[in-house]
Amino acid sequence: MTKPFAIGIDIGGTNTVLGLADRRGQIQLQSTMPTKGFDTVDLYIAAMQAEINQLVEHAGGRENINGIGVGVPNGNYYTGEVMDAPNLPWRGRIPLAALMNKAFDFPVTLTNDANATAMGEMMYGAAMGMKDFIMITLGTGVGSGFVANGQIIYGHDGFAGELGHAIAVRGGRLCNCGRRGCMERYCSATGIVITANEFLENSKEDSLLRQYSHIGAREIQQAAEAGDKLAIEVFEYTGMILGETLANAVAITSPQVIIFFGGLAKAGDLILKPVKKHMEANLLHVFQDKIDLVPSALPDADAALLGASALAW
Amino acid sequence: MTKPFAIGIDIGGTNTVLGLADRRGQIQLQSTMPTKGFDTVDLYIAAMQAEINQLVEHAGGRENINGIGVGVPNGNYYTGEVMDAPNLPWRGRIPLAALMNKAFDFPVTLTNDANATAMGEMMYGAAMGMKDFIMITLGTGVGSGFVANGQIIYGHDGFAGELGHAIAVRGGRLCNCGRRGCMERYCSATGIVITANEFLENSKEDSLLRQYSHIGAREIQQAAEAGDKLAIEVFEYTGMILGETLANAVAITSPQVIIFFGGLAKAGDLILKPVKKHMEANLLHVFQDKIDLVPSALPDADAALLGASALAW
Repeated sequence: MTKPFAIGIDIGGTNTVLGLADRRGQIQLQSTMPTKGFDTVDLYIAAMQAEINQLVEHAGGRENINGIGVGVPNGNYYTGEVMDAPNLPWRGRIPLAALMNKAFDFPVTLTNDANATAMGEMMYGAAMGMKDFIMITLGTGVGSGFVANGQIIYGHDGFAGELGHAIAVRGGRLCNCGRRGCMERYCSATGIVITANEFLENSKEDSLLRQYSHIGAREIQQAAEAGDKLAIEVFEYTGMILGETLANAVAITSPQVIIFFGGLAKAGDLILKPVKKHMEANLLHVFQDKIDLVPSALPDADAALLGASALAW
Repeated sequence: MTKPFAIGIDIGGTNTVLGLADRRGQIQLQSTMPTKGFDTVDLYIAAMQAEINQLVEHAGGRENINGIGVGVPNGNYYTGEVMDAPNLPWRGRIPLAALMNKAFDFPVTLTNDANATAMGEMMYGAAMGMKDFIMITLGTGVGSGFVANGQIIYGHDGFAGELGHAIAVRGGRLCNCGRRGCMERYCSATGIVITANEFLENSKEDSLLRQYSHIGAREIQQAAEAGDKLAIEVFEYTGMILGETLANAVAITSPQVIIFFGGLAKAGDLILKPVKKHMEANLLHVFQDKIDLVPSALPDADAALLGASALAW
């Protein structure tokens, strides 16, 4: 019989968020601990024990908890491992699910953060009841989760869903992955800042952005919202690259909706309008005018957490 | 209880092939009729009745047949319709599955030809037992079927799997679909001929291909096999576009193998080697050196037929 609660864990580069969720997607208790600052992954897991104990107690005992679901960058659903995640403190191949299972004695299911968010949207958010959709997370990088026939596409090795590393511009910007032109080098928070700096350098146009010595994605959004022409062009360009890349992805999986999550997605129409325009302009006729582009329907902190907990059911 | 036979029907632009298949994928009886030459789709279906009767008789009666599976260009699995297939005689939206069900009184399942071929490879061919692979058919156009988690990706509307219409070259060649730069405009039998003519026009290099007033894909293959430098460069270029496009598709679905079917696939290493080279060069590290590129393991005429019959189980 399924037990009433599951533990969801969302591991980010800076913080790890843990939550006790019920089947309806209500988070009953939530806690946060640092991801950084531990010399080894074993010390990190040892520190997590206190948080787990607290959640177990709130649930009224171990017998009420169905298992643990984990969303983590570069997490592999099939192996339970985390491999070379650039934003995590641990290098190489970390058997995280096995280590956590050993430490906490719960079944542990693990996937990458974008897939966990997709799972959260499918069970409790903007994709409730949908069988075919794409989840895009626009953060420091660009993550993606693809759902087809009601299931996450993990691929044969568990590493599927790397649309951020589809090559969008042949011979384009050098990416952290060592290749050139990856979509995330243009459409992440990092990418839009590179674009803004390029635009500022290559034009003499006046812009609110020229007042800053160091520009972040937030400043670009604020300037665009204030009507700054150059900042709006930066969003237009970002949306063009993302729209073109999505059009090619749509030709493969034909989703019902595309859901956007993460910092840059909060810019709303500033980013979604140009994405929509350029995606539609690049879609095969049969796909045109039928795909909704929507922001995540889950509260920020909860999407990945709920998705992670959903893995445990 | 499942009955011992299924009828598979592969509808091509010129001919329609019908077969009686058993569960092990053995075709017990096969027949062919023209697709063209009927004034309406009703007359086409009426003419098909004689072929169906023959298969039913060979099966020992209607009670031994589980149903009919159909592979047809632009066929939609969900609706059973064929929509605006450029190489078929019927325009608009044809409710083919419903018409055939009414005429023959068997359950009729229908999908597009590339998906049917993928189904054939999964049940009886190079993808037997695999859950994640990509099927590419290199014919007059380029078809594709994506399988993830052991299921064909149909998409929410049944039109998924159009990798031939992923845009490979921004602002590139005008495609029949009205857009520019579609992969099939470079990598189909039609596309490779365009490339050859372009190469011949833009170079003064001697080539065996200069002896022909009209070049086809076969002549290019023969010239390349004879060591013709220009013809080999044509295959290299074709493989580059296909490899680059496949690399981006791999980032989405992470397949175990990619299976190639159709006329151009018969060129073997001439096409597969450059595809492999350029795909690997464009893959994210985690996907490198683990995807096999293989030719179809089914006899030519049988792949789509077996796939179509597989739909009926």
